[in-house]
Amino acid sequence: MLYLIGLGLGDEKDISVKGLETVKKADFVFLESYTSLLGRDRESLSSFYGKDVLEADREFTEGAEEILSLAKNKNVAFLIVGDPFSATTHTDLVLRCKKEGIQVEVIHNASILNAVGKCGLQLYKFGETVSLVFFTDTWKPDSFYDKIARNRAAGLHTLCLLDIQMKEPNLESLVRGKVVYEAPRMITISQAIQQLLFVENSRKQQVFDKETLLCVGLARMGYPTECIAYGSLQQLADYDFGPPPHSLIIPGQLHFLEAEHLELFNMSTRYRIGETKGCSKEYCQ
Amino acid sequence: MLYLIGLGLGDEKDISVKGLETVKKADFVFLESYTSLLGRDRESLSSFYGKDVLEADREFTEGAEEILSLAKNKNVAFLIVGDPFSATTHTDLVLRCKKEGIQVEVIHNASILNAVGKCGLQLYKFGETVSLVFFTDTWKPDSFYDKIARNRAAGLHTLCLLDIQMKEPNLESLVRGKVVYEAPRMITISQAIQQLLFVENSRKQQVFDKETLLCVGLARMGYPTECIAYGSLQQLADYDFGPPPHSLIIPGQLHFLEAEHLELFNMSTRYRIGETKGCSKEYCQ
Repeated sequence: MLYLIGLGLGDEKDISVKGLETVKKADFVFLESYTSLLGRDRESLSSFYGKDVLEADREFTEGAEEILSLAKNKNVAFLIVGDPFSATTHTDLVLRCKKEGIQVEVIHNASILNAVGKCGLQLYKFGETVSLVFFTDTWKPDSFYDKIARNRAAGLHTLCLLDIQMKEPNLESLVRGKVVYEAPRMITISQAIQQLLFVENSRKQQVFDKETLLCVGLARMGYPTECIAYGSLQQLADYDFGPPPHSLIIPGQLHFLEAEHLELFNMSTRYRIGETKGCSKEYCQ
Repeated sequence: MLYLIGLGLGDEKDISVKGLETVKKADFVFLESYTSLLGRDRESLSSFYGKDVLEADREFTEGAEEILSLAKNKNVAFLIVGDPFSATTHTDLVLRCKKEGIQVEVIHNASILNAVGKCGLQLYKFGETVSLVFFTDTWKPDSFYDKIARNRAAGLHTLCLLDIQMKEPNLESLVRGKVVYEAPRMITISQAIQQLLFVENSRKQQVFDKETLLCVGLARMGYPTECIAYGSLQQLADYDFGPPPHSLIIPGQLHFLEAEHLELFNMSTRYRIGETKGCSKEYCQ
């Protein structure tokens, strides 16, 4: 039996009671460690559960042989930050289990897709979600631009998920046949805005403007140090949101309640009323 | 202090460990009882928490006076099925707290918006969510039709949330000045499809066709009796999904992995391989 268990976003206590009970009775516990990031490390989870938590990196999970072979006769808990169906890999794992006759049970949890509702924008007014990946000298995929344009034209908000690379193989090392991994890196709000403006500058369809477009930056959603700020792209790009994970929302048309809620996070107002600039729970809430 | 605590979708054990700890130390515990429905009643929650759980119906919550006045000096836990920001009412509650200087803390959980990922459709490929309300003789709002059309044109999936009326005042009784409440009612997948086809018949833009369009019906997501089925609108309309809450997804373009995952829930295949028609955990998983 394979249990896919969502951990939510913050720390070890965001697992559900049902999820925790399942982990405690499992024979093996794996933590998926490459599509997302929790506010706690694997050791904290181990000590909270009173169980060994094994790392499942990309190769291990996508290969899946070991997980499948264990799940045939044992109870395997596979822990996923957020909700289990936030990444395609886990769909693939379910399909492979079904093919081999292994039962799968899913224990849901919060994901960034619903937690962003905390900023005050209504979840049912979001259009298609976009993903921003790291630009390189030769690869600058910009399909997000058309999606944001389409959402904005329909008055819809756009959640921009920012790439997380926890354990990517170094390309040169692959060529040499000996795999070396890059250090973990995640796109920050500031980098994401640079990429957005880079594409705006080349496409020039006036989908954004760094001075006038008001957006929402969200850092470490669900962590004790969570930070939400609402301001122009320029203001957000200049702001120190602290460590990732970060997300960015480009709003569409605002209902008056949404506008009123966003004002709680308005950077300009906060500065005017004399609050200190800097990211902390005190500042951001 | 006001704690907005998501309960997730299934039963009392879908609350997070953090949420449960917060409930246990709260001075007052309210359950919001009109925007959604949990697989357990208020009494089961009370006995699981070892605490009185008070009902917060629409009038009580939208009035909010009592909650705000208690939260000024006491710890109030306000429990919401799914995630706290699934309904506009809760945004309003946050704003009123902020105005009165009451601190608000949010504990997230799964909502139907991410749990539907279990059917295999990728969450980032959903367009705008639509809501279907009960049609009456004189009121048949059909704005969902244009939204579904727009999503489908862009290749995106549409989640249709189906109206839940837990405690609606009877209009005649309102006129007479003495409020009487209607019995709870929820739109079923079958009713939703009738409404969709009614609008298709009058608008005739060929956004759906009951024989060819393959959709996903989802009943009681997160409950032990959860049921997911994939078939034509006609097949889904004829199928007994059991009691609500129900949801419906109208898919856009399918990635091959999505198509493969949906096949697990394909009604035609299931019939062909001789499974019994009827909704049960055994059938649906």
